[in-house]
Amino acid sequence: MSCKTILASKVSASFRTQIKEDIKERNIRPKLVGFLANEDPAAIKYAEWTAKTCAETGVEFELRKATKLELEGKITEANEDKSVNGIMVYYPVFGGKQDLYLQSCVSELKDVEGLCHKFVHNVYHNIRFMDSTETMKCIIPCTPLACVKILEYIGVYNPVMPYGNRLYGRTIAVVNRSEIVGRPLAAMLANDGAKVYSIDVTGVQIFTRGSGIKLAAHQVEDTELTAEQVIPQCDVVITGVPTPNYKLSTSLLKDGVIAINFSSFKNFEEDVKTRASIYVPSVGKVTVAMLERNLLRLHDYQNDLTEKKE
Amino acid sequence: MSCKTILASKVSASFRTQIKEDIKERNIRPKLVGFLANEDPAAIKYAEWTAKTCAETGVEFELRKATKLELEGKITEANEDKSVNGIMVYYPVFGGKQDLYLQSCVSELKDVEGLCHKFVHNVYHNIRFMDSTETMKCIIPCTPLACVKILEYIGVYNPVMPYGNRLYGRTIAVVNRSEIVGRPLAAMLANDGAKVYSIDVTGVQIFTRGSGIKLAAHQVEDTELTAEQVIPQCDVVITGVPTPNYKLSTSLLKDGVIAINFSSFKNFEEDVKTRASIYVPSVGKVTVAMLERNLLRLHDYQNDLTEKKE
Repeated sequence: MSCKTILASKVSASFRTQIKEDIKERNIRPKLVGFLANEDPAAIKYAEWTAKTCAETGVEFELRKATKLELEGKITEANEDKSVNGIMVYYPVFGGKQDLYLQSCVSELKDVEGLCHKFVHNVYHNIRFMDSTETMKCIIPCTPLACVKILEYIGVYNPVMPYGNRLYGRTIAVVNRSEIVGRPLAAMLANDGAKVYSIDVTGVQIFTRGSGIKLAAHQVEDTELTAEQVIPQCDVVITGVPTPNYKLSTSLLKDGVIAINFSSFKNFEEDVKTRASIYVPSVGKVTVAMLERNLLRLHDYQNDLTEKKE
Repeated sequence: MSCKTILASKVSASFRTQIKEDIKERNIRPKLVGFLANEDPAAIKYAEWTAKTCAETGVEFELRKATKLELEGKITEANEDKSVNGIMVYYPVFGGKQDLYLQSCVSELKDVEGLCHKFVHNVYHNIRFMDSTETMKCIIPCTPLACVKILEYIGVYNPVMPYGNRLYGRTIAVVNRSEIVGRPLAAMLANDGAKVYSIDVTGVQIFTRGSGIKLAAHQVEDTELTAEQVIPQCDVVITGVPTPNYKLSTSLLKDGVIAINFSSFKNFEEDVKTRASIYVPSVGKVTVAMLERNLLRLHDYQNDLTEKKE
């Protein structure tokens, strides 16, 4: 079979090395606090990975357990605690809209996951800096950012093109339109020039910057097209359906497609490699590397702001 | 029957008169823009009431229709348009978490509904001002505020008690724990001193400031108690279940209870008046008066800020 399987550990290796060296050279010890308020196996696994990767790279990681009802108070404490550089929450907590409320309770200067309203809003509007003087780059939500880094690694982003337009000409499906991953990911890929089909149970939407990428940021259109009609047109198919029952039929995939799965369940069928040119079965380890990358950035912003005050 | 039915129109009358006089005396014409992006009959009715009340009181109201996908862009335009003093959205739009994202897209200086993250957060934490110099009072979400004004009108708030503790000794059930109404309402009533049972399909939570109202803001505890166990203990029962199928059994109600319904469906049974001392079948007209009250406040904040800049 000519399909190449790319593991997340391989993509994340250079990021981990870079973070480790950076921390060592500068003799710093950034601190990340992770809050676990559920018994979700995927969340617990993600917490274990975070702990392991942080230990390897020199980041101080502290896992704090909380009940759902204690969580907001504990986030507020961590927001105010100067020894904490970054805060993350292993979602779901309540599972519904209250989780979005919680996401915005994390201070934007400590939001390593990039999930507070301001960061998500800026992703949608292709606003790349968080301050008006453009000294502080925005924090990008981790899992969408991990997908972008994987796409860069496997050559979907074309470095011959100008920065910001490197997906021009690409057609990508994102199967999941959650507020945490699927919608920001579709927006980011479209902002970088791709034509993106955003697919969920309610139907298909098209995210683009218009023909000839004429717009500064993407716009979204509804379409009557179905997943079955659009997936065969896609160069890249990215799935993130959080259930073991969903399987994207290999027969829909274009020959030579790039297949990436960010769900903790296998969303592609066993025979996906008979059709794909590149298959990335999971992204979690890259997500954790992105968390650390965001942590370092926020650590520096916090220090810069402290220096300015002094 | 000794039950007194109180109509929202009666409670809202004095507010409407006050707003009308204020607008006339000061010779101002505050402008409210409402966005309708659905065909929901309850939303359309609410929009009609807003238009009618605004016409009566001297507020300029403009209803703008939009598709779901156009809405965010149109909100941003209205945020930036100096001729617009207040913005509201007739929810639901997408119906899920994306609606919470939209709520925070409304500028806090124009958010007449009080649904952006900052205002909701401040309600939960009993923070009453939006600025550190305490010159601008927070905007309170309209429907919860309407319920509070109704409770004041019918004497549940005890003016003999100090401001902020006027519900001390009251036990209140709120049947609905949405992020838009039920949860902020339960928090506000508990912040004012009540013991509140917040009830939804997932169970019962208790919101209180602790025994002897020792805390500055409410805390929330889970309880194993069921709705059937707690409702008979309540002096006031407030319902807001958005379905015609839900009926709270009159047999559960304490004799002489105060029954208030903010759902657009009748959540109490036909015979509720055999048990209640006061019955408030709907709150919508008070909600619209609160929208206008919030609009006037934001209009003044906008003018004060413009004066400061000049």
